[in-house]
Amino acid sequence: MGALAHRPKLYEQVAERLGDAISAGTLRPGDRLPSVRQLSLRERVSISTVLQAYLHLESVGLIETRPQSGHYVRRRERPRLAEPLVSRPVAAATPVTVSALVSRVYRSAHDPRIVQLGAAWPAPELLPTRRLYRELNALTREAGDAGIVYDLPPGCPELRQQLARRSLDWGCALSSEDFITTCGASEAINLCLLAVARTGDTIVIESPAYYGTLQAIESLGLRALEIPSSPRSGMELDALQAALERRRVAAVLVVPSFSNPVGSCMPEENRKRLVAMLAERDVPLIEDDIYGDLHFGPERPRACKSFDTTGNVLLCGSFSKTLAPGFRVGYVAPGRFRERVELLKFSHSVATATLPQLTIARFLQEGGYDRHLRTLRRRLASQVERMVEAVAEHFPEGTRVARPSGNSLLWVELPPRVDALELHAKALDAGISIAPGPIFSARPDSYRHFFRLSCGHPWTPRIEGAVSTLGSLARSLA
Amino acid sequence: MGALAHRPKLYEQVAERLGDAISAGTLRPGDRLPSVRQLSLRERVSISTVLQAYLHLESVGLIETRPQSGHYVRRRERPRLAEPLVSRPVAAATPVTVSALVSRVYRSAHDPRIVQLGAAWPAPELLPTRRLYRELNALTREAGDAGIVYDLPPGCPELRQQLARRSLDWGCALSSEDFITTCGASEAINLCLLAVARTGDTIVIESPAYYGTLQAIESLGLRALEIPSSPRSGMELDALQAALERRRVAAVLVVPSFSNPVGSCMPEENRKRLVAMLAERDVPLIEDDIYGDLHFGPERPRACKSFDTTGNVLLCGSFSKTLAPGFRVGYVAPGRFRERVELLKFSHSVATATLPQLTIARFLQEGGYDRHLRTLRRRLASQVERMVEAVAEHFPEGTRVARPSGNSLLWVELPPRVDALELHAKALDAGISIAPGPIFSARPDSYRHFFRLSCGHPWTPRIEGAVSTLGSLARSLA
Repeated sequence: MGALAHRPKLYEQVAERLGDAISAGTLRPGDRLPSVRQLSLRERVSISTVLQAYLHLESVGLIETRPQSGHYVRRRERPRLAEPLVSRPVAAATPVTVSALVSRVYRSAHDPRIVQLGAAWPAPELLPTRRLYRELNALTREAGDAGIVYDLPPGCPELRQQLARRSLDWGCALSSEDFITTCGASEAINLCLLAVARTGDTIVIESPAYYGTLQAIESLGLRALEIPSSPRSGMELDALQAALERRRVAAVLVVPSFSNPVGSCMPEENRKRLVAMLAERDVPLIEDDIYGDLHFGPERPRACKSFDTTGNVLLCGSFSKTLAPGFRVGYVAPGRFRERVELLKFSHSVATATLPQLTIARFLQEGGYDRHLRTLRRRLASQVERMVEAVAEHFPEGTRVARPSGNSLLWVELPPRVDALELHAKALDAGISIAPGPIFSARPDSYRHFFRLSCGHPWTPRIEGAVSTLGSLARSLA
Repeated sequence: MGALAHRPKLYEQVAERLGDAISAGTLRPGDRLPSVRQLSLRERVSISTVLQAYLHLESVGLIETRPQSGHYVRRRERPRLAEPLVSRPVAAATPVTVSALVSRVYRSAHDPRIVQLGAAWPAPELLPTRRLYRELNALTREAGDAGIVYDLPPGCPELRQQLARRSLDWGCALSSEDFITTCGASEAINLCLLAVARTGDTIVIESPAYYGTLQAIESLGLRALEIPSSPRSGMELDALQAALERRRVAAVLVVPSFSNPVGSCMPEENRKRLVAMLAERDVPLIEDDIYGDLHFGPERPRACKSFDTTGNVLLCGSFSKTLAPGFRVGYVAPGRFRERVELLKFSHSVATATLPQLTIARFLQEGGYDRHLRTLRRRLASQVERMVEAVAEHFPEGTRVARPSGNSLLWVELPPRVDALELHAKALDAGISIAPGPIFSARPDSYRHFFRLSCGHPWTPRIEGAVSTLGSLARSLA
């Protein structure tokens, strides 16, 4: 709402105020909203503006219309599905072999005939495209040659300045000199892995883990050691500690905030303990904070980096999940590995594209980012909620889903007899993409009855239909 | 001339026609040009337009004014300097350790107080910035969301289509499916190294070699085996053959066209022999063709890839040296390693920035690229020529320079007593950056009395003065 336009339309403003009241709990599930006439008087807007606002709130799933009765805040019934249990990965470091499966998942990602429940990307209509383009066009008028020359490491000073400012929100107080900009968080993580590990070394990760990270570990000749993880609180630190006592590891890589695929969020006390445990052993922590801005609750989680007193934490992030995936702008604050990461950045891609960085720096400076994030978070929360309800309605008994408190992913555990690879194949035949569980482990026999659903797209009857089809397919396989 | 503006000014058109006549040899060194009045009549332009055209040609070093006599095509005296000999690197594969020196070189690269003779980049005023910006702005009006979403591997179809068309100029007939787009040629080369080699493997390279490539080899835990190379014809194939018989190598990496730093160009028969030699032994050839479009002679060299019948050649290139370094748009045609390189691209940076690729695709499609290249090549050739003359004039006896037939780099061999690292340090103190020889070898004790000069900037009295200062410093160290 209002994210795309520089100045939101009147009905969007009205809808946003109501949405805020719902988020804040001022209006609660089941509450009756003011009548159209009441609200029109109170807000001093026309009847049709109020109707538009209500229609909009209904379309994003925040309210519902009851015939002859009025508009109500939508009830969030506690869905009847249980959550998956803490994962129990095999306790040995293994080479990674997920690549072939992964390419099958992303190759259909831009096919408009496919209902996209596979890839973990925000729908473009949730992003402030027009404002970004406007900043970009202004830059080409004002920046002269600056937009075409190399922006050498550590990268765009204007962007690093804005990152330093934002790091206060993460509980850190980093300076622009602490950052190096990168081609998205993926490059940042690759550079960190190269900076801290040598071939054959072991990297500790959560289980399940993002397949891109698994592929990076594979391509660099490293080994992955998967640690049991809870769908609520992420990596189990007792299990980590036991693993660290048994073997030498080169680094621990975690996604503490709204991990991919499960959406877990590590509690603050765990973050603190994790940072201390690793600093004591001199094992670097690579923190993938790419989803940190997408919290559904009122507070952004503090980054692990905020507890780092020794430079042992390498914090990675990007704007690919909140502003513009195709701009390829990410960053890393590599702590004591700064010099090495900067040299690696130079030898790996020389520089990050200049204009996309300058554009995002301007966008951040103009102050539209926080407002955009508020809207984006509310919409993602609503989309996830709708997805949970739809899975509860359509999937066979025994299905479990994680309850993410941020991001836009849903980790679904099917009854044990249902093979997620079979479901993936049949779904693709039916024009629906999902991400099957085995791609989220270094061992392709893991998570055979799990899959990940993306809730990045606004809820539509087409998506509802796709979830219903998926449910039928799952039932037929059960 | 006319490279920046969509429609060149009148004087630029006149200057360009004369420049073409000089390049083609119709007007030869020492020839008198038509008088201002004659040319004004012949070209049907004003006297002041002709004067402007002559001034312009003089400023780029193509003609000279003799008082009371008129304008003449500038004589290219055969400079008195000899060329360096074929290199004689140590015949053992070594880990690479150049990184610390390299960062000292590039860290001053955007400092306007420093005369930039160190970095191998074209000056921004030689690039078609305004036209690129115009295409970019048109895209933001027309392309909608396409500019902000991920452009997943293999990358931008429009750009790959244009690359396929251009591959005819390289002697290849590649299809758009043969290409994967990348964040510059550097990323392409890193992906190729990862695709063909495992840690500890040996990569054969020319000697001297580009420091970025050496760093990439270092960061991936590979070893470099440097092969003797001629400043004229590049890698010595007999030496390569002997090396291949002695040891197992994972790949050969060459820059056959206008290599960095020496500017050598491998003859066509050598390219053919190289490709056959490696195909027979099943050793992949990574061909870095980043400078291929910058030939001074009339013909673009054929790519090694054009002799490839088995998919054994991985061809890498980019638009960083010809259009826009800061756009970070490169490509690879990985032959039989296509699938592996595509997966690596995904795990390493997910995608290449979308809008820069679309912008370059449009620029190529509109047909301005060849015209731009003609102008760029002529200017680079002229800048290199001026630099050779200035080195001949200012440097101590015993100095040698390579004679590049393309690109914009000059490899200078000082008398053996002069230490290039000392020269580099003293030059930086004097506000001049150069690239000292040792960074171009895996062994930092190599090329101690060599350095590389960049001729990427239009000739100015400031540059002339810097070369004179460098010469004095070299003499004082001799």
